[in-house]
Amino acid sequence: MSKEVNELIKQAAIKAKQETDDEPEPGLTSEIEWPVEVKIGRGLEGAIATTTKIGYVNGAKGWLVYQGYNCFDLAEKSNFEETCYLLLFGKLPTDKELRDFTEKLTEYRHIPEATLDVLQKVVTPETHPMSALATGVSILGNLDSTADDTSVEAETDVSIKLIAQLATLAGAIARIRHGKDPVDPDPELSHAGNFLSLMTGQKPDEVLERIMDVALILHADHGMNASTFTTMVVNSSLSDMYSSVVAGIGSLKGPLHGGANERVLYDLQEIGSADNVESWFKEVRETKRRVMGFGHRVYKAYDPRARILGPIAKLMTDRNPKFKRLYETAIKLEEVVTRELGAEKKIFPNVDFYSGTVYRAMGIEIAMFTPIFAVSRIAGWTARALEYLADNRLFRPRAVYTGPIKAEYVPIDKRS
Amino acid sequence: MSKEVNELIKQAAIKAKQETDDEPEPGLTSEIEWPVEVKIGRGLEGAIATTTKIGYVNGAKGWLVYQGYNCFDLAEKSNFEETCYLLLFGKLPTDKELRDFTEKLTEYRHIPEATLDVLQKVVTPETHPMSALATGVSILGNLDSTADDTSVEAETDVSIKLIAQLATLAGAIARIRHGKDPVDPDPELSHAGNFLSLMTGQKPDEVLERIMDVALILHADHGMNASTFTTMVVNSSLSDMYSSVVAGIGSLKGPLHGGANERVLYDLQEIGSADNVESWFKEVRETKRRVMGFGHRVYKAYDPRARILGPIAKLMTDRNPKFKRLYETAIKLEEVVTRELGAEKKIFPNVDFYSGTVYRAMGIEIAMFTPIFAVSRIAGWTARALEYLADNRLFRPRAVYTGPIKAEYVPIDKRS
Repeated sequence: MSKEVNELIKQAAIKAKQETDDEPEPGLTSEIEWPVEVKIGRGLEGAIATTTKIGYVNGAKGWLVYQGYNCFDLAEKSNFEETCYLLLFGKLPTDKELRDFTEKLTEYRHIPEATLDVLQKVVTPETHPMSALATGVSILGNLDSTADDTSVEAETDVSIKLIAQLATLAGAIARIRHGKDPVDPDPELSHAGNFLSLMTGQKPDEVLERIMDVALILHADHGMNASTFTTMVVNSSLSDMYSSVVAGIGSLKGPLHGGANERVLYDLQEIGSADNVESWFKEVRETKRRVMGFGHRVYKAYDPRARILGPIAKLMTDRNPKFKRLYETAIKLEEVVTRELGAEKKIFPNVDFYSGTVYRAMGIEIAMFTPIFAVSRIAGWTARALEYLADNRLFRPRAVYTGPIKAEYVPIDKRS
Repeated sequence: MSKEVNELIKQAAIKAKQETDDEPEPGLTSEIEWPVEVKIGRGLEGAIATTTKIGYVNGAKGWLVYQGYNCFDLAEKSNFEETCYLLLFGKLPTDKELRDFTEKLTEYRHIPEATLDVLQKVVTPETHPMSALATGVSILGNLDSTADDTSVEAETDVSIKLIAQLATLAGAIARIRHGKDPVDPDPELSHAGNFLSLMTGQKPDEVLERIMDVALILHADHGMNASTFTTMVVNSSLSDMYSSVVAGIGSLKGPLHGGANERVLYDLQEIGSADNVESWFKEVRETKRRVMGFGHRVYKAYDPRARILGPIAKLMTDRNPKFKRLYETAIKLEEVVTRELGAEKKIFPNVDFYSGTVYRAMGIEIAMFTPIFAVSRIAGWTARALEYLADNRLFRPRAVYTGPIKAEYVPIDKRS
């Protein structure tokens, strides 16, 4: 019963409302006048890349908002298809608009046979699934004769294609890497249901489908993160949306970005059981190793996505007791970390802390965690790239040169 | 005789010295303290992404410097292999170092058969060669089991591989798109010579080889341009060098970045002959169309690369009179544009203005212009990504949200 899932989200929303300040800060969301004076640190920290109406993260308050709608409402009441429409078009669709959009996704979900042939040729069990995903999108770009029309209209259509097709590609890669043949999309299933079915070859039950749907909604957009920024940077040279999304996938692949929930799961497996948490944590602190899944450059309050995925991790591991120990270890680790570090440093679990446990208990292998992230985040990537395209300016910061400027070219036989 | 080419470069250097100020501005190249206060415009204009010792462009004086060496010296005295070594390792190589480096390139130039098989499957005459190039690099990444070692050492080795292999891929794509089979690299040829031979299937003569070598040297690095920045952004999530270069290729593909010399050539072809320049220019001004190949966000003086490539365009079109008219049209267009706009706005031809004429007179089709750019710029992409990796911080600017924050989720049947 997916009502059970929705009830958990409702409870999480109530808890968030009790614990976090609901009042907007004045002036936080207002138009700016270019050029702006800012203080920037390394990694362009603090630099303002653009203004946006797509989404908003308020880390101090623990808010995540898409086009004005908070993530609790969307996770409980919306679905991934509608959330994509909202992100791309800036409003909730009418019944007819949603049906048309969903039909497009159903149609686009089928990818050219040549793409799957190539993936079967170059994807081995050792291939990083994110590299394979990038290859797949790159090939789709080669084969789409509309790719180089960089009008907002044409790029919007390619974006919808890519939202549909990334799930097909990721599903195929999940199978190909284990020597299994890809399966066909099922026009009767939702996007989340299709994605699960394309990975496993089986029609998912209602709860699994709803949980994947919620996970996809919650990861769809998150401010100006590195992969979203990458997608926008590539698109800003008036390259095409395939090239831009390929770049976003490449960025998300990095362990500093999309790889975090994998590493949380390796930690939880290493700890083994709740009993070992205290001693493990002590050792980790002594060796100054980082505990993954806590804190965030942005959130200084409880991550709203973790509020939702925590209880869902419990639900899923109740259903699949093989992973019960994973959940118990996680709960204990959250308790210990927040007890030891939380009070002083405002460190709370982030989305990556529970998403991995949810996916594992759904029977998904760890290597597919980052591709799931991509299948969701493509919505934010494309929405923000399209928004920027409508008033485009090439991204081109500068570097400060600190080397010599008048070196003398010495012939090779005189060099030492 | 390639001496002829070198003599032209020497003359260009003398002219540059006469016309431009040779004195460094104080304080232009000094270490900075983070965070820094800056004024930034849209497109991150003015934002400082990093400090670097790789290369320096002084647009006001018309300087282009790699690791302290000016581009006139390098174009005349160095070759592309040595320039790559310089950019990657920060010094000119000794004889032994250069031989070792060149041997590595020779070895790495061979790419796995599977990659070529795939390209033959997915590249059609309509496929954008830059999309095909990205696909090729992405597949190389799938097949390289060292790809995910993100130490500076391992990524340096992958960078050398990619410098070698991008030419092989681009050469193969030039042939495959016309239904021709790729040819094998020739261990006796230089990188420039190989690149020409891989495209045409013929051993190039000495002058063609030297001119390609000069073109590759002159495009190898150019400050913090969009594709270099893209490569660094992807690599900063500790993704791998293949993914980072794939992203750089996607960025360079855009007409606002790498596509400019193509468009210059289309303009020159449209004008047809020197006689038509005045009337064409008048019409273009009236319709407020942009004249491609002039001016640059950075250069307010004569682009040193255009100083070198202008005379080389003359040399090549003298050798291949079929393209003489192209050169005469270009010369006349430069005269008219600088007469009409140059004095007030300091508008001069940039590198893209003459490179296309050079390539066409070498017998290279227009579609391959941007891939040639990539085969060269890979040096700067990788050198700067590696420099940043050594003291890495994830690139993550922010966006300012200007939308609503408390939208009410209305059920679908109540929306209008």
